[in-house]
Amino acid sequence: MLEMGGNGAHEIVARLYPRTGAAYTIGITGSPGAGKSTLTDRLVTLIRQGGDEVGVLAVDPSSPFSGGAILGDRVRMQDHATDAGVFIRSMATRGHLGGLALATPQAVRVLDAAGKPWVIIETVGVGQVEVEVAGAADTTVVVVNPGWGDSVQANKAGLLEIADVFVINKADRDGAAETRRDLEMMLEMTNFPDADDWRPPIVDTVATTGEGVGALWRAVGDHRASLEASGELDRRRRARVRHELHDIVLQRLHERASEICSGEKFDTAANAVLAREVDPYAAADRLMGS
Amino acid sequence: MLEMGGNGAHEIVARLYPRTGAAYTIGITGSPGAGKSTLTDRLVTLIRQGGDEVGVLAVDPSSPFSGGAILGDRVRMQDHATDAGVFIRSMATRGHLGGLALATPQAVRVLDAAGKPWVIIETVGVGQVEVEVAGAADTTVVVVNPGWGDSVQANKAGLLEIADVFVINKADRDGAAETRRDLEMMLEMTNFPDADDWRPPIVDTVATTGEGVGALWRAVGDHRASLEASGELDRRRRARVRHELHDIVLQRLHERASEICSGEKFDTAANAVLAREVDPYAAADRLMGS
Repeated sequence: MLEMGGNGAHEIVARLYPRTGAAYTIGITGSPGAGKSTLTDRLVTLIRQGGDEVGVLAVDPSSPFSGGAILGDRVRMQDHATDAGVFIRSMATRGHLGGLALATPQAVRVLDAAGKPWVIIETVGVGQVEVEVAGAADTTVVVVNPGWGDSVQANKAGLLEIADVFVINKADRDGAAETRRDLEMMLEMTNFPDADDWRPPIVDTVATTGEGVGALWRAVGDHRASLEASGELDRRRRARVRHELHDIVLQRLHERASEICSGEKFDTAANAVLAREVDPYAAADRLMGS
Repeated sequence: MLEMGGNGAHEIVARLYPRTGAAYTIGITGSPGAGKSTLTDRLVTLIRQGGDEVGVLAVDPSSPFSGGAILGDRVRMQDHATDAGVFIRSMATRGHLGGLALATPQAVRVLDAAGKPWVIIETVGVGQVEVEVAGAADTTVVVVNPGWGDSVQANKAGLLEIADVFVINKADRDGAAETRRDLEMMLEMTNFPDADDWRPPIVDTVATTGEGVGALWRAVGDHRASLEASGELDRRRRARVRHELHDIVLQRLHERASEICSGEKFDTAANAVLAREVDPYAAADRLMGS
């Protein structure tokens, strides 16, 4: 259970941070029931067979508890529970100070510092959460199912924006071909300015049998190679750090606002404004010590 | 045309502030087309007949322009255009730094400092805007029309929360009695802990003919008397000032975050984080000079 986002986070990150930076992060996102957990499980098996260690971060933005609700879903992962090469952590984000945007990179760093060269971030994707998780991952895999096109019309553009790899899971079901055509059409309408630009591939999988998981892993590898060759990986990580710094600064300033706007000093300032001894802007400046 | 919310606001408020505090503010809110402008016009006439001066602040949260869209609606107000005892200002809030919550009290202060004992804040009420305008007014009048009950189901609770006086305008139309019953039922379900607690009256008006406007003005006067007798007026204004101070502090801190997170110093910090010379939290603290 990780408790991230508060002040304790600072010390943990300070200690871990110099030992991070080697992990490659893969985000797996999509609607509930799309098969993300099973897919993650299959990927973990594949990575372990290749000899690498792997960390898994399961993010549940709806649960107020770390561990609980997600662990139920994690029963399948029991295969890996006794494998020291697999490090599984679940994280609830509801009520987290600073939210997912601050908590995710810190949780990833714990797995990174533990020496896992691969970190999979699996999330129950709901709108903004998908985007924030994508912001924390080097490669973002968006998992859809046959028939998907009808149900999430509104969110299609957002998914297209963040997807580096599309997976049609449960591809043995009716409608898989239509879903592929749908995705291909979306991709065709997207502008890829350069010939070298990465164009998200679409991979069919049946996670329950393991079918297509090898192809998915190759697609992730291809995307990583493309990011590294073009310098885009550095650019992404640079943008990510800048974004995180900005979020931390904002969080700190909000904490400061709460401090400033409470206690005796604030009461005194409010009373002075009410008595018209000072105007609200001057009072605010005085409170802030500027 | 008022340009409020930026840095210029500080100087204006600083100069005006000592001369404010005498005005009593009345918020008039309700759906577009409910008849707020006509009602405001009638109230202005009534106030002027009583010998008092009055300021009117028209808030349009959707318009990016000050003056324009609202002025069209203000043609009726032309009667008062040459009357020095009436001071009319319109304010657009879209894109305003700090938003309506910061801009409204400042605009009210301009009218207050101009010596108007009454300031009417008329707004095109759309959800949050109604609440923010109510926060700036001593008495909040919520204007509805017959048949209203069917259309704004979702917002009823919010209106009940802010209404000090309900007006059923266009009360000569079908459905006025049902709307009154509807409002009365809502009020009955509301808990008024003390016998002395103000219970929002419901006033029927036909703004186009002026019918009921006298009763509305008496209801506003009753509410003011109740607020003053109970000490609630002071409590409201105190809460308002505290809220405004908090908003200003937050705005200042956000401005500071934007400054901190730009320029060469920020680039250097981000690069140091990327090079793992410093962790993000320590870098943020260093940037903030703490």
